Amino acid sequence: MRKTLPLSQLVEAIAEASSIRYNNLVYELQRKKKDVIVLSLGESFFDIPFYSFTDLDYVRGYHYSHSRGIFELREKISRFYEKQYGVSSDPNTEVLVTAGSKAVIYMALRTILCPDDEVIIFEPAWVSYTEQVRLSYAVPMMVPHYEGVADINKYVTERTKAVIINNPNNPSGKVYSKKELKQLYDFAKRRGLYILSDEAYSDFVDEEPFHSMAIFDKKKERVIVVNSLSKNMGMSGLRIGYVIANEKIINAILKLNQHIITCPATLVELYVIKYLDAILKKTFPQIKKLLSLRKEIGRYMDSIGLERLPGTGTFYFTVSIVPSKLSSEEFATRLLKEDHVATVPGLGYGKSLDSFLRVGIGTESPERIKKGLDAIRTLITKTS
Amino acid sequence: MRKTLPLSQLVEAIAEASSIRYNNLVYELQRKKKDVIVLSLGESFFDIPFYSFTDLDYVRGYHYSHSRGIFELREKISRFYEKQYGVSSDPNTEVLVTAGSKAVIYMALRTILCPDDEVIIFEPAWVSYTEQVRLSYAVPMMVPHYEGVADINKYVTERTKAVIINNPNNPSGKVYSKKELKQLYDFAKRRGLYILSDEAYSDFVDEEPFHSMAIFDKKKERVIVVNSLSKNMGMSGLRIGYVIANEKIINAILKLNQHIITCPATLVELYVIKYLDAILKKTFPQIKKLLSLRKEIGRYMDSIGLERLPGTGTFYFTVSIVPSKLSSEEFATRLLKEDHVATVPGLGYGKSLDSFLRVGIGTESPERIKKGLDAIRTLITKTS
Repeated sequence: MRKTLPLSQLVEAIAEASSIRYNNLVYELQRKKKDVIVLSLGESFFDIPFYSFTDLDYVRGYHYSHSRGIFELREKISRFYEKQYGVSSDPNTEVLVTAGSKAVIYMALRTILCPDDEVIIFEPAWVSYTEQVRLSYAVPMMVPHYEGVADINKYVTERTKAVIINNPNNPSGKVYSKKELKQLYDFAKRRGLYILSDEAYSDFVDEEPFHSMAIFDKKKERVIVVNSLSKNMGMSGLRIGYVIANEKIINAILKLNQHIITCPATLVELYVIKYLDAILKKTFPQIKKLLSLRKEIGRYMDSIGLERLPGTGTFYFTVSIVPSKLSSEEFATRLLKEDHVATVPGLGYGKSLDSFLRVGIGTESPERIKKGLDAIRTLITKTS
Repeated sequence: MRKTLPLSQLVEAIAEASSIRYNNLVYELQRKKKDVIVLSLGESFFDIPFYSFTDLDYVRGYHYSHSRGIFELREKISRFYEKQYGVSSDPNTEVLVTAGSKAVIYMALRTILCPDDEVIIFEPAWVSYTEQVRLSYAVPMMVPHYEGVADINKYVTERTKAVIINNPNNPSGKVYSKKELKQLYDFAKRRGLYILSDEAYSDFVDEEPFHSMAIFDKKKERVIVVNSLSKNMGMSGLRIGYVIANEKIINAILKLNQHIITCPATLVELYVIKYLDAILKKTFPQIKKLLSLRKEIGRYMDSIGLERLPGTGTFYFTVSIVPSKLSSEEFATRLLKEDHVATVPGLGYGKSLDSFLRVGIGTESPERIKKGLDAIRTLITKTS
């Protein structure tokens, strides 16, 4: 008889997403009525009206939808990607909508990876890529932040199966140039690799234009594009994400979706079909406003001597804490406890990021963001 | 250079859920304006009013919720399980709500299974159990329908880690007796096994009372209970499922949820928090009505000589096609094409079910259901 009931070692080894752990510390302080400057959330607080649910077909909304997602929604997404980014797709066979892009990235990875396959991931890397690769029994191969697309050769082995690219990058804001993307695509083609391109922040660009990875791969031989409504539209709570890929991959993801998720909340699909265009009209100007705030904040960082990784997109900065002697976790914890400023320690985005913090500017006023940056600046000096 | 880009063999080997494949055939016939009697859906069409979204906190609804699910919803679920089934749980630590019970079963399996672990599954078995166990790199060990809890000993090996029980069973309608459940629990305790108890049809019982597996395991040492709003409340489209388990398991599932799903649609959580009680008042009488229809249909089957697996719960029957010479897939396909009656072939529920069909009575009138059964009866005779 076994006394203990061991859990999956793989799951036990997963780090709780550090951004979430820090947010829980924030909630605790807030419950104690402390005024916390929150630069840690992965959200932007847009002002979006609430449209009526009354006109929606609620009976349909109460029941399962097609497990590729409702056709009209796939059609809208397909048209959007064509019009906005020049990527054409067949909504019948090459698009699948489900409950968030996180789920769809996981299913795409499960679809392309065999055990022990290696996946190249550029740091700073969104924390779930690494864990999702591990949950697929595959191996993440991290490229440190100071290396780029041109250095990828060093990280490829016989076992490499795919590259994940996050364009624009959360958290650096890096927008990949057309030249870099082409270079990566050519490399992947030469080596027979898939490219999973997470384009969740595709509209959060300003000076440098966004190019979808899929423009290089008209036949969708190796590029899998994932996107969502969470970031570009500021509606993370609706849990709608989607993937554009070739028919064979979509069919495989479809099978996984049928066995793991089924479909997004049908009611929410109906809502998005009806109001997507109206919502986009509201959010696009707010994205522009947020990007102009990003520039202002960048100038402010320059003025107080805060360095950061290069990037012009998204609503994040990856701020250096060098020459502080603290690790990113120690620094962020002290900053939160002493100064009531919440950020995310860089370590969660890769080992090469342990002297950085993620600073998000989507949820606070310019004045409060600057106050938070002052506190970072002071703590760096104090701990150097 | 690799020419081809091989997909995961595991995913390629997954059978598309056969119920879904048949439903697609149904859609095709319906597009051709054929009148199809649909006995294949895994849904009951309840009459549920549509409550107002206007009073909900939509700004909150547009954003992520806690990745355990909103606390008030966990509290409501915890109280419901206590009041309804005598299972107590701490909503802070022992309950997690996410986007459907399918996702939560998958994450629970990933949490408890290591590669090559074996999981005992009773046939007829919901098709996703088998595939989800395989996706966890573990091995499903199927118990044929003519064996029961008392025979489980034959299927246990050194590698057995868990048993999945679906109570009441989809598709037989079998409601496990307290004695059977106790026997299974004692066995699992003696052998150090987890029990995953899928109780999605817990309110769909009539003559035989439903008992939650969790009543035998006050400390939740080994019992993991999963349930949802899809079946009991006829609201599959809302995608809300939940798990009740010990704190350690919930914490592990939480990590998976953070990396795979995040949370259900927040707006839908708010809707359910506000209207759950009102909806239950509407659905409970309709469940009773459907169970009384189930009895009527059972008597009708007796009168035309259609045999079936024993069971009094759910809104399904597992109908025998013996002595037809056709396999269940051949039979169901011919029934659909010739008679325009849609059912689900038994094979999808296990190898021992290849001389059965799943017949669901949640979406058609008594007259049309009987017409469908007549067609089955006739085709059995014709193909014997």
